[in-house]
Amino acid sequence: MPITSNGNGLLFRQLFHKDTSTYTYLLACTKTNEAILIDPVIDCVERDLKLIKELDVKLVYGLNTHVHADHITGTGKLKQALPCCKSVLSDKSGGKADVYLGHMDSLKFGNQTLEARATPGHTNGCTTYVMHEHSLAFTGDALMVRACGRTDFQQGDPSTLYESVHKQIFTLPPHYRIFPAHDYKGFSETSVAEEMKYNPRLSKSKDEFINIMENLNLPYPKRIDASVPANLVCGIIDE
Amino acid sequence: MPITSNGNGLLFRQLFHKDTSTYTYLLACTKTNEAILIDPVIDCVERDLKLIKELDVKLVYGLNTHVHADHITGTGKLKQALPCCKSVLSDKSGGKADVYLGHMDSLKFGNQTLEARATPGHTNGCTTYVMHEHSLAFTGDALMVRACGRTDFQQGDPSTLYESVHKQIFTLPPHYRIFPAHDYKGFSETSVAEEMKYNPRLSKSKDEFINIMENLNLPYPKRIDASVPANLVCGIIDE
Ligand SMILES: [Fe+2]
Ligand SMILES: [Fe+2]
Repeated sequence: MPITSNGNGLLFRQLFHKDTSTYTYLLACTKTNEAILIDPVIDCVERDLKLIKELDVKLVYGLNTHVHADHITGTGKLKQALPCCKSVLSDKSGGKADVYLGHMDSLKFGNQTLEARATPGHTNGCTTYVMHEHSLAFTGDALMVRACGRTDFQQGDPSTLYESVHKQIFTLPPHYRIFPAHDYKGFSETSVAEEMKYNPRLSKSKDEFINIMENLNLPYPKRIDASVPANLVCGIIDE
Repeated sequence: MPITSNGNGLLFRQLFHKDTSTYTYLLACTKTNEAILIDPVIDCVERDLKLIKELDVKLVYGLNTHVHADHITGTGKLKQALPCCKSVLSDKSGGKADVYLGHMDSLKFGNQTLEARATPGHTNGCTTYVMHEHSLAFTGDALMVRACGRTDFQQGDPSTLYESVHKQIFTLPPHYRIFPAHDYKGFSETSVAEEMKYNPRLSKSKDEFINIMENLNLPYPKRIDASVPANLVCGIIDE
């Protein structure tokens, strides 16, 4: 058993990278010690490796919810340090990984199961990972607290994003807790019920949503030209 | 019932203020909707009020774990917006509040109970709030993830802090989750077992701890001269 456990079989830690406001999630099966990291950041790999060691868990997968444009993934560096760790991405991502997940595929670590739901629209490969046993969903940039990912670069498409969120996330039970890939205002989580009611974009009609997303006039993302090519190969470009 | 609930009677939200790396905690009884905020920050009051409204809970108390030196508390501004809210501080804090808690006093909100444990050493009034029913402790600056508060200003005293943590926090069951007032590395929580084993200061002997704390050579806190006088009166200085 890991050093600490809540008694529900799942060890859960939310981690934050301040520079890019990115959340990383460490999840471990407390029966078998098998663990996964969702959306690790390359700058935080040392921190994450230390925590994994201290908690006495074994990292089996490093997952990305999508090919990020704002930071470089930590999965490549984690794999170098921990050869037992496999990288995971959507089969629609266009990126390199050890394991590809399609819509409604599941991934096991110890006695725990993640369900992969394809939620494209921010990028083609955006995936929401759902843990039904614990009423949790990791939504990446598809759905964030009172917000959502941009649809004006990579394979962004507001109509697709709207359908993804309404068909794959808003159909989950209302009490399911939602953990996003980013937050810029200090929120750490939300719920299906809250976003259905209060999301200023996605609670609207599809036409209104498309109109909002097409008129955000956001600046070109700072790190996209370095991040996307690196993230297509797990964060490590051979030179 | 609030809009969202995990089924264990407690609605829990961790909130973050990036500038000062401060955590604020919103806790609500899902039976009665009565809610409290622990360590609200004056800069985030609008955000917190909006969340309270959206979650449909009623703020009855704004607590501070201590008179902070690094940010101004939001309790005064919250009380102006929500007259039903009372401010809470330790009876040893020297600050102004509506409710004073002594060692082992308890505070109720709806069906939920907090136990106040005096944990001085960073300041005289430092209090750890424990929720035994949920295996949670809010430790303020007494104990942070792999760290602890400074003991070189206000009423700081390393010997007192060591006794507080060892007698009042490390005696809690090892699986209790610990939520601090700050984190600077992106950790959101820890546990009693982890800090007993891995805290680089407090896992040491008392003499070693005192030696570490007396040799940190930290700069004078930036905001202390504005924050402490304001926080002694709930964040609002009458002019
Ligand atoms: Fe993204
Ligand atoms: Fe403090």
